[in-house]
Amino acid sequence: MKVLEDQILKRGKVLPGNILKVGSFLNQNIDTKLLSEMADEIYNHYIDKKITKVLTVESSGIALAVMVASKFSVDMVFAKKTQTANVDGELLSAPCYSFTHKKQNTLIVPKDYLDSNDSVLIVDDFLANGEAVNALIKIVKSIDAKVSGIAISIEKGFQGGGDKLRSEGYDLLSLAVIDEMNEGKIVFRK
Amino acid sequence: MKVLEDQILKRGKVLPGNILKVGSFLNQNIDTKLLSEMADEIYNHYIDKKITKVLTVESSGIALAVMVASKFSVDMVFAKKTQTANVDGELLSAPCYSFTHKKQNTLIVPKDYLDSNDSVLIVDDFLANGEAVNALIKIVKSIDAKVSGIAISIEKGFQGGGDKLRSEGYDLLSLAVIDEMNEGKIVFRK
Repeated sequence: MKVLEDQILKRGKVLPGNILKVGSFLNQNIDTKLLSEMADEIYNHYIDKKITKVLTVESSGIALAVMVASKFSVDMVFAKKTQTANVDGELLSAPCYSFTHKKQNTLIVPKDYLDSNDSVLIVDDFLANGEAVNALIKIVKSIDAKVSGIAISIEKGFQGGGDKLRSEGYDLLSLAVIDEMNEGKIVFRK
Repeated sequence: MKVLEDQILKRGKVLPGNILKVGSFLNQNIDTKLLSEMADEIYNHYIDKKITKVLTVESSGIALAVMVASKFSVDMVFAKKTQTANVDGELLSAPCYSFTHKKQNTLIVPKDYLDSNDSVLIVDDFLANGEAVNALIKIVKSIDAKVSGIAISIEKGFQGGGDKLRSEGYDLLSLAVIDEMNEGKIVFRK
């Protein structure tokens, strides 16, 4: 998505350790005009998938997910992160390692918020190794609902999580895929 | 706002300790049609205030805040919660005690995300004692920006935080104000 790629080049910052900071327009300070265009792009891609629910993970996935869910006129659910592995039977859960914060989390969603008939669109801001998305997939599958698509703002293509999901047959739409990020230079996938 | 009050009566759950659970439609599983109506109500109330930024706190304030910001076509910023009190000079911060989780947090916002010329609308899902809103006010004032309004989904009127803000002259709009919550019975302010 050209407008997003342009904003990444203009306003993103590459920090040591392949960290891309997009807090100033996408993540913590959110440009809602850009966000709405991104939600439109995602809506148009999955328009025929009869999406019944949008699922994300707190906190930085929520803004895009709620805009996308609003376009589909469906509910948005976010998984909470907890550091305790003990979750009760009323919760769906899956382990999720955070490379950014170097800690093991568990993602949890109350069982009532997903249904086996749901056609779920997973939305998140970043996809790198795929830890968070794979945990969300596990949660959806644990209740026998369907993962109808995965929509991502920025995929770090060089970390492989996205291509693995594509090879597994998921309909993955990443609005920007970064294939290289060396010495501050960002190369997008064509 | 009648449609919100109706949903609170229908889908909310009152737990011991004056805790109102609205996770199933407002908080973690979000009814985006209701959320959009709530954002419209807020937009119409503050339409003449020349709002330039919407500010909230992670996680549960984000969904409403981004919808409201989108109606105003302005950026939305959320404060992050941290348990460390040591924040550097690039961050605006204020202490905030969480009665729900019984712990002291610090709310932080990068300095770059707010400007002294900003006319800020603070948005949050709940207002009880007013801890979070007062911390957000402190952050806005610390950079000499203006708090032009405070919009809340559900105010627990009996806890006093809202009336204190009104007496201080803030333009506070709470879409539902609960004045009593005894033995599962909810009484709204007229």
